[in-house]
Amino acid sequence: MTSAEFAREIRRNPLVILPVGALEEHGPHLPLSADILQPMALAKAIAKTRRVLILPPLWYGYCSSTRGFPGTVSIEVDTLRLVARDLVEDIYRNGVRKLLVLSGHAGSGHMAALKEGAKEVAGRHEDYRIAVLTDYDFAYELLGKDGIPEKDGHAGFVETSRVLAVAPRLVKGHARVKPDWPSFNRHEILGRPETKWKTGVQGDPRKASAAVGRKVDAYVLKRTLELIDEVFAAL
Amino acid sequence: MTSAEFAREIRRNPLVILPVGALEEHGPHLPLSADILQPMALAKAIAKTRRVLILPPLWYGYCSSTRGFPGTVSIEVDTLRLVARDLVEDIYRNGVRKLLVLSGHAGSGHMAALKEGAKEVAGRHEDYRIAVLTDYDFAYELLGKDGIPEKDGHAGFVETSRVLAVAPRLVKGHARVKPDWPSFNRHEILGRPETKWKTGVQGDPRKASAAVGRKVDAYVLKRTLELIDEVFAAL
Amino acid sequence: MTSAEFAREIRRNPLVILPVGALEEHGPHLPLSADILQPMALAKAIAKTRRVLILPPLWYGYCSSTRGFPGTVSIEVDTLRLVARDLVEDIYRNGVRKLLVLSGHAGSGHMAALKEGAKEVAGRHEDYRIAVLTDYDFAYELLGKDGIPEKDGHAGFVETSRVLAVAPRLVKGHARVKPDWPSFNRHEILGRPETKWKTGVQGDPRKASAAVGRKVDAYVLKRTLELIDEVFAAL
Amino acid sequence: MTSAEFAREIRRNPLVILPVGALEEHGPHLPLSADILQPMALAKAIAKTRRVLILPPLWYGYCSSTRGFPGTVSIEVDTLRLVARDLVEDIYRNGVRKLLVLSGHAGSGHMAALKEGAKEVAGRHEDYRIAVLTDYDFAYELLGKDGIPEKDGHAGFVETSRVLAVAPRLVKGHARVKPDWPSFNRHEILGRPETKWKTGVQGDPRKASAAVGRKVDAYVLKRTLELIDEVFAAL
Amino acid sequence: MTSAEFAREIRRNPLVILPVGALEEHGPHLPLSADILQPMALAKAIAKTRRVLILPPLWYGYCSSTRGFPGTVSIEVDTLRLVARDLVEDIYRNGVRKLLVLSGHAGSGHMAALKEGAKEVAGRHEDYRIAVLTDYDFAYELLGKDGIPEKDGHAGFVETSRVLAVAPRLVKGHARVKPDWPSFNRHEILGRPETKWKTGVQGDPRKASAAVGRKVDAYVLKRTLELIDEVFAAL
Amino acid sequence: MTSAEFAREIRRNPLVILPVGALEEHGPHLPLSADILQPMALAKAIAKTRRVLILPPLWYGYCSSTRGFPGTVSIEVDTLRLVARDLVEDIYRNGVRKLLVLSGHAGSGHMAALKEGAKEVAGRHEDYRIAVLTDYDFAYELLGKDGIPEKDGHAGFVETSRVLAVAPRLVKGHARVKPDWPSFNRHEILGRPETKWKTGVQGDPRKASAAVGRKVDAYVLKRTLELIDEVFAAL
Repeated sequence: MTSAEFAREIRRNPLVILPVGALEEHGPHLPLSADILQPMALAKAIAKTRRVLILPPLWYGYCSSTRGFPGTVSIEVDTLRLVARDLVEDIYRNGVRKLLVLSGHAGSGHMAALKEGAKEVAGRHEDYRIAVLTDYDFAYELLGKDGIPEKDGHAGFVETSRVLAVAPRLVKGHARVKPDWPSFNRHEILGRPETKWKTGVQGDPRKASAAVGRKVDAYVLKRTLELIDEVFAAL
Repeated sequence: MTSAEFAREIRRNPLVILPVGALEEHGPHLPLSADILQPMALAKAIAKTRRVLILPPLWYGYCSSTRGFPGTVSIEVDTLRLVARDLVEDIYRNGVRKLLVLSGHAGSGHMAALKEGAKEVAGRHEDYRIAVLTDYDFAYELLGKDGIPEKDGHAGFVETSRVLAVAPRLVKGHARVKPDWPSFNRHEILGRPETKWKTGVQGDPRKASAAVGRKVDAYVLKRTLELIDEVFAAL
Repeated sequence: MTSAEFAREIRRNPLVILPVGALEEHGPHLPLSADILQPMALAKAIAKTRRVLILPPLWYGYCSSTRGFPGTVSIEVDTLRLVARDLVEDIYRNGVRKLLVLSGHAGSGHMAALKEGAKEVAGRHEDYRIAVLTDYDFAYELLGKDGIPEKDGHAGFVETSRVLAVAPRLVKGHARVKPDWPSFNRHEILGRPETKWKTGVQGDPRKASAAVGRKVDAYVLKRTLELIDEVFAAL
Repeated sequence: MTSAEFAREIRRNPLVILPVGALEEHGPHLPLSADILQPMALAKAIAKTRRVLILPPLWYGYCSSTRGFPGTVSIEVDTLRLVARDLVEDIYRNGVRKLLVLSGHAGSGHMAALKEGAKEVAGRHEDYRIAVLTDYDFAYELLGKDGIPEKDGHAGFVETSRVLAVAPRLVKGHARVKPDWPSFNRHEILGRPETKWKTGVQGDPRKASAAVGRKVDAYVLKRTLELIDEVFAAL
Repeated sequence: MTSAEFAREIRRNPLVILPVGALEEHGPHLPLSADILQPMALAKAIAKTRRVLILPPLWYGYCSSTRGFPGTVSIEVDTLRLVARDLVEDIYRNGVRKLLVLSGHAGSGHMAALKEGAKEVAGRHEDYRIAVLTDYDFAYELLGKDGIPEKDGHAGFVETSRVLAVAPRLVKGHARVKPDWPSFNRHEILGRPETKWKTGVQGDPRKASAAVGRKVDAYVLKRTLELIDEVFAAL
Repeated sequence: MTSAEFAREIRRNPLVILPVGALEEHGPHLPLSADILQPMALAKAIAKTRRVLILPPLWYGYCSSTRGFPGTVSIEVDTLRLVARDLVEDIYRNGVRKLLVLSGHAGSGHMAALKEGAKEVAGRHEDYRIAVLTDYDFAYELLGKDGIPEKDGHAGFVETSRVLAVAPRLVKGHARVKPDWPSFNRHEILGRPETKWKTGVQGDPRKASAAVGRKVDAYVLKRTLELIDEVFAAL
């Protein structure tokens, strides 16, 4: 897409989606890119029914509990806030008035950095509609329903199923992964959390399947479209 | 307490509690100080059964969705991260090895700032046990149970009950407060959220009571003591 | 005080006082909270004759020469500047136009941080009257007069007398404290000043008395009221 | 690639390449993604003859003179420095000791930010070999040689040729582009450079061709391999 | 002086002096460079009796109350803190162990920035002796003595006399300057202090003379040498 | 120059020149002040034919590859960006509308810091003309011409000649200096570059002469005047 094509598209006032990920360890079986594959797939699904412009992804986010595992490459939480602030502002300068920041990584520090960066910009422009979302906000609404376990998490049953649905060849041996959970309290602040968490897996991915993944993805899509219609329709 | 008394107490390796609040609008009926009253009361309750040293409270936190209401006095989210980092570090310098940061305000940006500030320090000192908690992490585990509504929030049924339990004279006319909810999506990023939220109340505080508040407080205390015993016992 | 009550009070254009302290070693005899007790007492005295709204105190300031003593819990100087800037700005957003930042701690770095943070805000709002004061700016005008020694300082004769006046039960054994002075030059920059200062006492607190403290406090009150009338009357 | 696969590969001490781009206007004929296409192609070419691990690209850099054109989405220069610092440090933490940061965008502020971010990390780890390069450092060595004009620049003859070589279908109508140059002095500091530069083209892309692009790319590859062998061989 | 000559001199462990000034309005009669002339003259006087290496001056400091007058060119207070920190650290890296930062400008924010920047470095190096001084700390010890007025200040009797002593030709018409004082309270924080201060003069420079200036300078030199011998002799 | 004289001069809308240097090792033969001597001499030459106001120099810049040599005293690159931003902004506040930042030090990080600092200000004021230049941008246009070597650099043939032209007594024994070059690749990022560069000399200064220096200086002056007339004439 050239500059002129971009300008022409923006004048039609599309919803612009900025996919955000993290390059992050995801157990022994999922690819480091899991957190970018998922929002990219969701963004493409949204684009089938809404006028959408998808920006190139921000590959690097802020990882906290998996920071010490091989393959996690993270920026600092405050750097991410600045990146989010700068991008959200410069996207506005381009004439965009509807922005969905869609993160595949759901860590609370990471999400707060994205939201706070966006909020600083929102305070400057009254005509700018912004939503910051991780698809896991919706995916985990299914916990305890339809055969999905009540407790699940990072690289667990749901996430493994979803990656199986969108990139099956990148999933390696999930059926042999030992279920695991971090052995620290979720309120504990640890300098080196990986010392209390053997695998970086939170849950039991052994019975994950592409079929479950597709079901979850369909639900996440439905909920995201509802959000889009609620937040962005008015503009 | 003098410097020498402080030093003597620290040598006994107590759990140190840093209460954190926010000076924040809490509907038409609750005091601006609601978020500091609650952790102070909880800290005192903890002190009855555990060796605890309670530090003076950090009165000012980061408020986001209530920022535009009268009486909210907030610092910026990144400033709070720096304050948390500095305090957690200087508390360590004093010889403290067990620290509970206990926040009465539960906003996600606020909590992320406290956690990320603490995490930076945790990465420097392997012998430092830290937990960062808002009492609402536990209080809201009761939603949908024992006559507590499924949905509730800021200055709503639970919080009003809890303030009634600890400072009944500061609660004014909660029985006449109209139930309310923010009319924006929780994923939306708004520069001026108060324009879409009449009262700053999330829920229905009309039937709140000190009795319910005491029940919730007892549960929160039990859960916090469990956390303390799990996280800090080993040291 | 609820949000609505706060708004109503602000519409009457009161002088708002933000008490600032430090949690700081004060010799073997004074409490760590000395620097917050004093401005709180002064603020209350002011409130008897002027229309005043007292905000909750900022307990944590920046301590430099006592940093290494037990019980001092300090934030960094630049963090304090940001906290001051944020609070002074958000207080303005609430409609306040007359603000007195009243610090019980008088360290030069601490005071500069408060002043510079406030100055950044003052440059943005022409209708905002701000004064930043430590009560010791006035208290030490009495040095060498009325039986007060010519040289005195931190936790010395004057400060001990003033704490005896407002919180006598928190003063412990001042009559047995050995007079002391820092053994470094006041222009010297030390990484660890406590290695050259045994007690954190600057002066001789042995003959301090509540009577002297009350006399000093009366003088400080008179001078502060003069300041208030001069700086804030016009608005 | 999973975490374990990543760890295994790193133990073989490969050269790790971090491709960096910019989402940036490139005249009426080149795609916004030009600056990421080129280093990705170069990285893949390097990988054919050297042991290389290519990280996901950093899509967003710092654009200065094209900042005001549609489609440029930039972060601030100091944010980029922090991103570079964080990534270079976290890559080291993963065990990497040979890193090539390869930028398709060649702006001087952008390159300085990458270099200064990397330099901060280099100062902490004596066993870390790092090079920061834009492929245009080598491509422009050909100016004035072999039919390449003496003067050329952004979206001009050389760059258009190179994009024609790697992504011909993304180039649109370069034969009809009017040659252009910025009408400001290169030492001038402009808040809005786009007001003095009609097209964002620096040079004459009309006769650009894939054949020239391939020739330039072959040269750039040769020079980059020389650099790699010189800088990283020793380790 | 070449690099090698510098290295040789540093090995002799001299006192290194970093003169700091401000480019600042000084009434209608004194030059903008007054604050650099004075510490340069003092540094040269010190060099006559002590082993001293004088670094090039830092011309730009932080001006607050004169910020709005013509000819004041100031950096921000936090920038000055960083400059001081960086210089004090890099001077240490050069092997210097005795450093006097000597400022001709005496503003409290300016001095705090220099001291806090230096203090950060002092905390890292136990063998580094640093003093931060403005010559006015000593000059004003003479207020009320020997015919010097009790109250005096910026561009007043003492400063005009001192500039007359070191650079008489740069003083223009001080005998006709109207005495003046800022008409704001010294505790007031003003965004635009120049609106309440006509001339930038604090005091009465009309009877200033080179003879008085020389007397003051002799006293300042004596006091500074005492400081030097006390602080730096031990090393 | 007094405040009033400064104001009067500014009203004539002169070109204001801010000379910037670095205190930096320059081989065994050149003074540490080489990078300030050169722009000062150039500024004075400009002042002979154009209406110019020369500000006091900024002595301290950012040095990278010579950082480890004795006598280099550098601030950090980001500090320099802030200093440049602050000065360029405060100069505008004084009414200046034409500013030339003229640096004798030509390091790429240093120049980028000056430019990015200035650019931030340029974005705020449409009527402010700014150029940021190092005289070496022009001096090295002569490489390979008129007996000047094709390759040359820091403290080499050209720079030594230029210092011989303006301050011959400060050059010591250049005829005996061994030609040298850094033994690292220019794209390499080194924590300690001085370990791979014996002398800090880039080139061969042995045949440098004042005559060559004067010739280069005349050329640099001519090119700078062209730049001035092009960039600043319009205003």
